[in-house]
Amino acid sequence: MDLQTLQTELRQFAIDRRWPPFHTPKNLAMALMVEAAELAEVFQWMTPEESVVASLDPATKERIGDEVADVLLYLVQLADHTGIDIEEAVARKRDKNTRKYPKPG
Amino acid sequence: MDLQTLQTELRQFAIDRRWPPFHTPKNLAMALMVEAAELAEVFQWMTPEESVVASLDPATKERIGDEVADVLLYLVQLADHTGIDIEEAVARKRDKNTRKYPKPG
Amino acid sequence: MDLQTLQTELRQFAIDRRWPPFHTPKNLAMALMVEAAELAEVFQWMTPEESVVASLDPATKERIGDEVADVLLYLVQLADHTGIDIEEAVARKRDKNTRKYPKPG
Amino acid sequence: MDLQTLQTELRQFAIDRRWPPFHTPKNLAMALMVEAAELAEVFQWMTPEESVVASLDPATKERIGDEVADVLLYLVQLADHTGIDIEEAVARKRDKNTRKYPKPG
Repeated sequence: MDLQTLQTELRQFAIDRRWPPFHTPKNLAMALMVEAAELAEVFQWMTPEESVVASLDPATKERIGDEVADVLLYLVQLADHTGIDIEEAVARKRDKNTRKYPKPG
Repeated sequence: MDLQTLQTELRQFAIDRRWPPFHTPKNLAMALMVEAAELAEVFQWMTPEESVVASLDPATKERIGDEVADVLLYLVQLADHTGIDIEEAVARKRDKNTRKYPKPG
Repeated sequence: MDLQTLQTELRQFAIDRRWPPFHTPKNLAMALMVEAAELAEVFQWMTPEESVVASLDPATKERIGDEVADVLLYLVQLADHTGIDIEEAVARKRDKNTRKYPKPG
Repeated sequence: MDLQTLQTELRQFAIDRRWPPFHTPKNLAMALMVEAAELAEVFQWMTPEESVVASLDPATKERIGDEVADVLLYLVQLADHTGIDIEEAVARKRDKNTRKYPKPG
């Protein structure tokens, strides 16, 4: 999956539906959070152990997949609208994480 | 960015730090939601118009980039732990969206 | 509304339905966040101005009211399960806020 | 704690700080969700069992109390700005819950 191609296609998808006025970074961030909550809701009442095997159930797995996709779709659109290069941001954040959490000796 | 390579590297990163017991799907979904909220917090008191230009400020842009990366990092780990093929899930969800929101004539 | 009476009644409601094993503070905090997201979802694509008048529509107002209630119901249960005295916590937090944001002269 | 008195005092607190333009229902709902996420963050990596005893630690208990208060403070302000009578909304939602989840025989 090429994220830049995805961004271009989602931008066109939004333009075709006259959604751009709604797609401010603020609204996209809010929608992303709502989708993240829908993803969390799947696991809400499960024990940790149940959550580990939840995706063995095909219906649950499809639901998780749909919510994972929703989060990603809003994330790449938000990055597009704020000029964030996702790969660069991920590389920089991973560097920070490596320094913050050094590998134990 | 190859998502599968990223997943493999993040899995090793977690193993090296003895995090796997904490990385249940439930906990990863919760952490993802918390990061999504931190991303939304950036835009919380902005007007829609201010959110559009927020990333012109370098410090704000770095903060947005960091939070975007955090969301993506938890998302790919959650997908890894639930056996979700992200590309497939995104393709299926985009098909659903195309049917749900047909292009106006 | 007496919050302590409400807590006692909700505890009994949960016991009658055999929910206590699910009502850990962690799960209640997660459920609270999910309800807060459902409340935010109401306003997600609105302009600020539209959100100001949203509750003039009776159906929207009922939806907001239901979500406000859901958030409060989980909040008082979480407080109950963590031994938090809500009134005391609110008083202390308001004191902190008064010091953090002094009234402009 | 009288919720209506609290609402009146918070309204004055906001006016004194010139916050009303920021306190649209949309922004308050977003702030509420962010605070709910901060509350969930406390329990994020805990096991269910650890979350049950988390508030035995005084520092953790203070943190939980502060976040519980933050959620409540935004909730009553959101209710104030949308004309929601919280007590009425809670009573109606509890009726719905009683019908939705009847007491097992």
